[in-house]
Formats: sequence, structure tokens, C-alpha cells
Amino acid sequence: MFIQEFRIPEIIFGRGAIEQVGYCARRVGAEKVFVVTDPGVLDAGWIDVALPFLKQEEVDYEIWHDLTENPKDYEVEQATRAYIDSKCDAIVAIGGGSPIDVAKAVAVMATHPGTIHDYEGVDKITNPLPPMIMVPSTAGSGADITQFAVVMDSKRNLKMILISKSLVPDISITDPLILTTKDPQLTANTGMDALAHAIEAYVSLAANFLTDSYSLTAIRLISAYLGKSVASKTNLEAKDAMAKASLLAAIAASNALIGAVHALAHQVGGKFDLPHGMANAILLPHVMEYNYPACIERLADIAEALGQPAGGTNLRERARGAIEAVRGLARELGIVESFAGAGCLYSEEVIHTLSANAVKDACLITNPRDAGLTDICGILSRAFSG
Amino acid sequence: MFIQEFRIPEIIFGRGAIEQVGYCARRVGAEKVFVVTDPGVLDAGWIDVALPFLKQEEVDYEIWHDLTENPKDYEVEQATRAYIDSKCDAIVAIGGGSPIDVAKAVAVMATHPGTIHDYEGVDKITNPLPPMIMVPSTAGSGADITQFAVVMDSKRNLKMILISKSLVPDISITDPLILTTKDPQLTANTGMDALAHAIEAYVSLAANFLTDSYSLTAIRLISAYLGKSVASKTNLEAKDAMAKASLLAAIAASNALIGAVHALAHQVGGKFDLPHGMANAILLPHVMEYNYPACIERLADIAEALGQPAGGTNLRERARGAIEAVRGLARELGIVESFAGAGCLYSEEVIHTLSANAVKDACLITNPRDAGLTDICGILSRAFSG
Ligand SMILES: [Fe+2]
Ligand SMILES: [Fe+2]
Repeated sequence: MFIQEFRIPEIIFGRGAIEQVGYCARRVGAEKVFVVTDPGVLDAGWIDVALPFLKQEEVDYEIWHDLTENPKDYEVEQATRAYIDSKCDAIVAIGGGSPIDVAKAVAVMATHPGTIHDYEGVDKITNPLPPMIMVPSTAGSGADITQFAVVMDSKRNLKMILISKSLVPDISITDPLILTTKDPQLTANTGMDALAHAIEAYVSLAANFLTDSYSLTAIRLISAYLGKSVASKTNLEAKDAMAKASLLAAIAASNALIGAVHALAHQVGGKFDLPHGMANAILLPHVMEYNYPACIERLADIAEALGQPAGGTNLRERARGAIEAVRGLARELGIVESFAGAGCLYSEEVIHTLSANAVKDACLITNPRDAGLTDICGILSRAFSG
Repeated sequence: MFIQEFRIPEIIFGRGAIEQVGYCARRVGAEKVFVVTDPGVLDAGWIDVALPFLKQEEVDYEIWHDLTENPKDYEVEQATRAYIDSKCDAIVAIGGGSPIDVAKAVAVMATHPGTIHDYEGVDKITNPLPPMIMVPSTAGSGADITQFAVVMDSKRNLKMILISKSLVPDISITDPLILTTKDPQLTANTGMDALAHAIEAYVSLAANFLTDSYSLTAIRLISAYLGKSVASKTNLEAKDAMAKASLLAAIAASNALIGAVHALAHQVGGKFDLPHGMANAILLPHVMEYNYPACIERLADIAEALGQPAGGTNLRERARGAIEAVRGLARELGIVESFAGAGCLYSEEVIHTLSANAVKDACLITNPRDAGLTDICGILSRAFSG
């Protein structure tokens, strides 16, 4: 038996949907919105596109873009001060996973005492948050949909994950046109992040038929369109498909939760400041290998969704096909196959420290196969050498 | 572009889930629940199963089962009086679509002035409704999930449909074990109702990728398991699958809305007091024939989900395959193929009156092909003779 309280933002989807940002801000009662973004999105001109629609609805704004790829606790503190000082009453993020995570963390810190560290883990958020409107600029992070926020703890040098239904934004505005300004590498990495969400959600211990349908549909879309989306900035059919896949995978991941790929990606990505999607892409086949004995049938379903032949060979071979298909896709997209290849320096101490942090990550709870420190060290070592 | 504010009840799913009814009642703050059910469910002993779990949580109750297959406005009035007189503060329905529709109508009338007729149509409900917990006993109606309620207007002799997000229940408790006491004919009819929800949602003008994934998954499950579920009262795998299909189809239908099958089924079912699922099963292939020019690609997808070969023939032939597959399934389940076969007396006046009422049904708004009175008369005439 399972209980599923499906929590999803209101979703606005379509080419040109960014124009709705002003109307949405007014609808949630905002007088002044705190616009969190990143330098890439700013340079691409999307803030300039969005602002007139805020003005049109007479919604004032304050822009904040002082953040890095894996946002840090002190960046959240600075942003929170700016939010409070500028007397904003709602938050809009326009960008990838990083500004959306910062936006969520600001929402928490603007309404709760202490520091962001106090809210690490599951269900620590108790007060209502200000309205949040998210406009994702990458097809992958899914942070515009999920109940997750990830912030780097600069002192402990690890990534903290916050999980709470309160972190589900009010409105997600997905405009596939924004994807046309992403470079191929970002497209590849974030697409693999979406794939990791869908696969981890599908094998999660908390998966159910409501999330399964979305996981498999997302995997099918990614298998069919990620390569095309990486190959062309202007293939709008591929951008639409990847935007849909990102949403579906994120709904599945937020409601079925995720697993060891993310538990490890948070730590390795945080330590070496790697793009989150790249860390996932490197880890995904290794975690699938580890999880294999616990979810053979599920892996066979994933193989089919990835376009592997459905019948013919036996179940175990089909399940293995899923791992090979994921490896093949990442290779095809030109993503490095190991952390060593990504320039990360191996040492036994690093493996041990990162694994010890990963074991404490809340994502590990729903991984289909129990994983202790030794198991996690093993996975990470293999992912280092490829 | 589309805006989707997905509204879904909290879903509790699993064998034995009915045991959660007491805890759920307490969670929604109920002190005394109005339990709406039907004679079949009462006879099968499911109320006796449920009551101890209410008592265990010290929730008082009043049982109401004075209703017919296509519930009437005066039954709603009687039930509302009983609800108010017994000082209940929440509503639990345990049964098929009829008691759930009555439960929703009571919720409206207990909190709004006038009669139920005043709330026919879209978004007429303005006040908050009492908490609603629905335990469906059939895999099909989906009323435990949807924003729809259907009530017979005994004076005008037509079915009224009420559509409002407020009619989405708070909690849906689906226990596949309840399906083991349904007779094969009820299983067949309600399964075809679920199929109609999935197909109408998939071709609906308001369909989107969030509802599409559920529509197709529901169609696949129904295609694989409805025959097995009808063939055996105790095939739990089939009961689980049909319970899931019903939920998925209902989520899709409630959020993408439906079409001409339901617009007509409401009227013919109401006039001749036919089981709703049977009316849908008879109408479905005829409406698909009519809609065919407007949704060839979508019908081809449906054909594939129904197990028709995906490649080989051309798109138009594949789309036609969907219609034949639906016809074949209904035949295989022993459902009559025409309203004449169901004992309904044909007359031009009946066709005209029912069609005129169907044209005013809110479900017609999202039908993929425009349908005026003449078109609807044509569909209904063909469905009469089969
Ligand atoms: Fe991720
Ligand atoms: Fe129906």
C-alpha cells in the first residue's frame, strides 16, 4: 500500500510562456519580486525579455545574480539579505538549477530563523514560504518542480539537501525557446540530469504507478530527443520534447524520490565544482550496475524505454541493456566517462570522505538496494576510473 | 501554450487500503461522517468492513444508501436533508460512481443555497465544501478523482454535469480487493467507462503531455487486463491493474476533460436508465468514427496502446485500427453493440431530444471535432442501430 499526496506546481508550458511571468507575479499577489538568475541567462538576454512583462503588470523587481554553479551557503545569506533589504514579497527564478536552488533557499531563510544549515534534511520547514515562480532555462534540473533544494555547506565542504513539500514552487513557467540559447555541453549535461531523475525515480523504493508512467515517458523522450537537442540549438521539436521530459522526470523524482546517483553526485559535484548533470552522467551506469540485483525487471523496462529491443533475449540481458544504453548515450553526447577524465584528483581519502557524506544524504533512503559506506566507496572508486 | 493546474486528491492505493478510512476521517477533522453507499456494496459487506475503522478512531457515522443507478435530484435532496439532520461534518462514499456523485452533490447542497440545478455547468461552486473521502468499489467511474459530478434532473429528464475543482475529493482510497466482489458485467461496463475516459482525454482539445502519459498508460493496462478481470473475480493482478487504470484515466479525464461520448452517454444513460459504462461502450466507436478526421495521429497512438501493430500499415489504417480494437474489446466482453440491443426504443423524437440535451453538455466543449445538433443526431442514430 502506498499513500501519494502528489504535489505539483501549476505548470505553464509553451513557446513564449516567459511572457506570463508578470501576470503570474500579480496573481500570487506580488508587489515586488526578487528575480534570481545566473550570468549566462542574463547574457543571453532572457531577463531583458522578462522585465517588460513585470512592468506591464506594475510589479516592481530586484535582480540578483551573484551565485556560482554549485551555490554556496554564504551566497544564500547574501541573497537573503538583499531580498529583505529590497522589501520583496515574492521570488522569481529565471535560470538553471543553481538560481532556482538559491531562490528556494532565500524563501526559507526569509521566513525562518537561524541559517540554511538548520533546514537540511526532510521536513524541517515549518513556516509558510513567500510565493515562488520558477522559469527554468535548462531542460534537466527540474528544480522548478521538485520539493528539493541543494546548497553547498562551505565549512563542512559538502552539499546539503533540503526536502519539503513547501519547497514545491507555486508556478513553473517552462518556455522551450529559452533552451535555444544553451550551449551543447550544458544541454547534454542537464539532459543527463533529467535522465538520472527519471531512472532513479523509476527504481526508487517509493516509486508507484503514478510516478512510473511519467518516468518511462520521460526516458522515451530523452532517448529520442536528447541527441537531437545537443546537435542543434534551433531544433524546436527537440527543445519542446526535452522541456517536457524534464518536467515529467522532475514530477516523478519529486514524488517517488531519488537514489544513490544523486546522493553521490551532490558530494562529488560539490567537492570538485562539477556541473551537476555531468556528475550524474558519470555515476549513473555505475549505480545502475550496483542496483542491478535489486531491480532487474525495472531495468528491463528502462531498457525498452531507451529503445532497446523488448523481446528476444532474457530478462537479465535486457536489464543489462539499460546500463549499456545509458553508457552509450553519454558517450555519444561527448560526456567524459570518469571523474578522473573530468580532472578530479583521486585519493583514498577523498573517496572515503565523499562516500561518508553521501551515506548521510537523504536521497539514499529510497535507493532500491541498501548501500553502506563500503558499497558507496566501491561505486565511487569505479566512477573515478570509469 | 497551456496552463495546467493539476488537481488530484491524495491517493491511497493498495490491497486492504479500506482500513485507512477511519484514520483519514480523523485527519480531515471529521467528528461524524455521512457514509454514502449503494445496496450492492452494502450486501457485499464492505460497509461492515469499513465501520470498525471509523469506530477505532472514534469517528461517528450515519449511513445512507437510498439511491439508484443514475442518481436523481430528489435523491440528492433527501440525502442532503439526512446529512444536515444527522449533523455530519464530512462525507465518505464507498461504492461506484452513483454514491460518489451523490456524495459530491450533498457536499454542494450542504454548503450552498438553492437546489442542485443551480450548480449545473462549469465553476458554479463558490463556497468551501466539507471534506470528502471516496472509496471506489468499481474500477472505472473515476468519480473518486475527478472534478465532475453527474445528477439526473427528474423534471427536465436529462443529466446535469457539474464541473468544478472544488469537486475533486480530498482523499481517494482505492482498495483493489473491493473489486473481487463485482459481477463480471459490472466489471466489463465500468472498465469500458475507464477506457472512454482515457480515450476521450487523449483526443481532448485540452489534452497535454501531462495527461497524455496517463491516458496511454491507462489504455495499455485496460487492453492487457480488462478481459482477465472480467473473466475472474479473484485474479488480483488484474484487479490491481484495472484499479490503477481507473485512477490514471480519471486523472487524465479530470484534467484534460472529455468529449462527445460522455456528453451523449449522460443523456442516453439518464433517459433509459442504462449503466453509464455500457452507454459509453456503445457510443465510443461511433464517436471515434466521427472524430477520426480531427485526430488521426492521436487515434494511431491509441491503436498502439491497444496492442495493434505499430508499424507496417499507414497512419490512417492504424488510426482505424483503434476503432476496430475498441469494438472488438466490447464484443469480447459481451457488451451489446447498440442501444436497440440494450432494449432502448428508437424514435426520431427521442434521438432529437437526447441530442439537443447532449449539445448543451459541457463535455462537448473539448471534443476534438466540432459537433452540432445534426452531427450528434447522426452519431446517436448510428449507435442506436449498431
Ligand atoms: Fe538532479
Ligand atoms: Fe464516465
